[in-house]
Amino acid sequence: MTCATGALLLSVAVAQASPWQALPEQPPIPENNPQSEAKIELGKTLYFDPRLSKNGAISCNSCHNVMAGGEDNRPNSVGVHDARGGRGAPSVWNAAFLSVQFWDGRAESLEAQAVGPITNPVEMAMDDDAAVLARLNQIPGYVELFKAVFPESDPAISMENVAKAIASYERTLITPNSPFDRYVKGEKEALNEQQVRGMETFLNTGCVACHSGANFSGPDLPMGQGFFMKFPTFAGSEYDAKYDLLSDPGRYEVTKADSDKNMWRVPTLRNVALTAPYFHNGKVANLDEAVRVMAKTQLNKDLSAEETADIVAFLNGLTGEFPVQTMPRLPPTPNTTVLPLADK
Amino acid sequence: MTCATGALLLSVAVAQASPWQALPEQPPIPENNPQSEAKIELGKTLYFDPRLSKNGAISCNSCHNVMAGGEDNRPNSVGVHDARGGRGAPSVWNAAFLSVQFWDGRAESLEAQAVGPITNPVEMAMDDDAAVLARLNQIPGYVELFKAVFPESDPAISMENVAKAIASYERTLITPNSPFDRYVKGEKEALNEQQVRGMETFLNTGCVACHSGANFSGPDLPMGQGFFMKFPTFAGSEYDAKYDLLSDPGRYEVTKADSDKNMWRVPTLRNVALTAPYFHNGKVANLDEAVRVMAKTQLNKDLSAEETADIVAFLNGLTGEFPVQTMPRLPPTPNTTVLPLADK
Repeated sequence: MTCATGALLLSVAVAQASPWQALPEQPPIPENNPQSEAKIELGKTLYFDPRLSKNGAISCNSCHNVMAGGEDNRPNSVGVHDARGGRGAPSVWNAAFLSVQFWDGRAESLEAQAVGPITNPVEMAMDDDAAVLARLNQIPGYVELFKAVFPESDPAISMENVAKAIASYERTLITPNSPFDRYVKGEKEALNEQQVRGMETFLNTGCVACHSGANFSGPDLPMGQGFFMKFPTFAGSEYDAKYDLLSDPGRYEVTKADSDKNMWRVPTLRNVALTAPYFHNGKVANLDEAVRVMAKTQLNKDLSAEETADIVAFLNGLTGEFPVQTMPRLPPTPNTTVLPLADK
Repeated sequence: MTCATGALLLSVAVAQASPWQALPEQPPIPENNPQSEAKIELGKTLYFDPRLSKNGAISCNSCHNVMAGGEDNRPNSVGVHDARGGRGAPSVWNAAFLSVQFWDGRAESLEAQAVGPITNPVEMAMDDDAAVLARLNQIPGYVELFKAVFPESDPAISMENVAKAIASYERTLITPNSPFDRYVKGEKEALNEQQVRGMETFLNTGCVACHSGANFSGPDLPMGQGFFMKFPTFAGSEYDAKYDLLSDPGRYEVTKADSDKNMWRVPTLRNVALTAPYFHNGKVANLDEAVRVMAKTQLNKDLSAEETADIVAFLNGLTGEFPVQTMPRLPPTPNTTVLPLADK
């Protein structure tokens, strides 16, 4: 390789490595779960159906609210019988771009994630998969819909197919055309001066090292291969105690490997302005404080008030367009209910 | 008046008094709250916004689910911190045709009803009206929407206007064109033979004495003037104890008049097949049993199995067409949350 060729290659590499990428309108679709209109509609119906919870009061949407920023703006979510988990609900919007799901990356796909909360005792609290399937089988409309969507499956109603349908719906929950995206595509007025300054500060401070890629959640990895970072990377700041950053060991809970202590899947920054409070435990109410905490704990930097405000302005430019959605009709159980008459 | 004229008058009166009326496409609209597209959209947004509850986990729709039969198919509803009231959630669908609201008729309009649950400690549990208004004022999108919808109000955000907007939305929740309605309008195939037989049994048994009018909830009375009946009217059957029919004194709780003990607003039978379990306390899981209980306790009649099945078939013909709805976008509080960071 000559020097001239080397320089050319380098410049190409630099051009390709632009940190700014618009959000694709379509996320990756796994080969074993192709999209179809009917499957998406079934998935949406399941997603909004509170009968997937033991007491019939909580649906996927209760905690991952698609009418809002895709979660519940709470530090943690409210499960059946007022139960609480220790971590905040991640947004469902653009979750299809994440290569692993949950804060600790314990699910390698939307399919693997979708059915977890249904039988989690602090979430939807169904006794077990059999109870879920029994209930769905009691709802004639679901029997029909599953057969139509999964004609090759016997039985058509299975946890695998519940997962596939919900995941298919979630892959439609994409928010393209944020001011940032329009800016990247050439519409230079889409971001204001402060936002452009914030974009540079975001880059120069080093935030982009982890919040990279079109989804601001790290490099595009094969599905199932997560991108994790230690939080706090620079332990010892006032924030560790103030926001209880160390007590939840994160990915360690999954792997039990010491090297995974306090490791977390890097979250997207898409629509981050809509998803307060912040971090896995929701201890930080405001985005400016979240930015300060990140700079200090991850990059060991103290941002000025102006730098912080500029980054926050930029992050507000990551709020995308939310597609209009119609409400599903939940299939009835005429003349009866599948819910218990007493649950207390 | 001659005999001939008398006979003529009688025949006219009989024709006018047909017990079967199709559901109007529009409910009564009060003069002081005219409908507008913007008001309806604001009302829908509020209706689906869980931030109207103390912990941000419960919206109007949580218990009065418009994606289903307008309620939650539970015997009672789940409030903040897993609280329970003693009565089941009535359906929001066609509630606009009721002249009074709540099981005990304590609200004389949808407006009066709409704001009750927001500060009810076993429902949405906001501390007081001031807390509701303070929270709405923290949400920039609502400040804008209320000003646009209520330009004559100062302040635009008030409980009165919250109520007006939600009530306006609820007045769009009408389910016309049930098989029964189509039958009444002349489409004689809309009900099958059993349903037509059930319609006659419903009439001849006397059910229609109370479940009359287009909404099957009693005569059209001026708004605020409710139609109440004692349940059980014929006390002493096995059902009193079996389904605990006497312990809740119903309207007596509102008026403290002995004559109102166990008096209840006559509920609509529209979409009744979708709203199990039945009665104010949700103690009866199935519609056939509900029909048997009603015949016995209200009319002192023991229905045969065939009569019961026929009436149930007829009641299934009262399930209407549910208009397609788009989901509202809940206005955000960028960079922060209005919900408490700890609520337990």
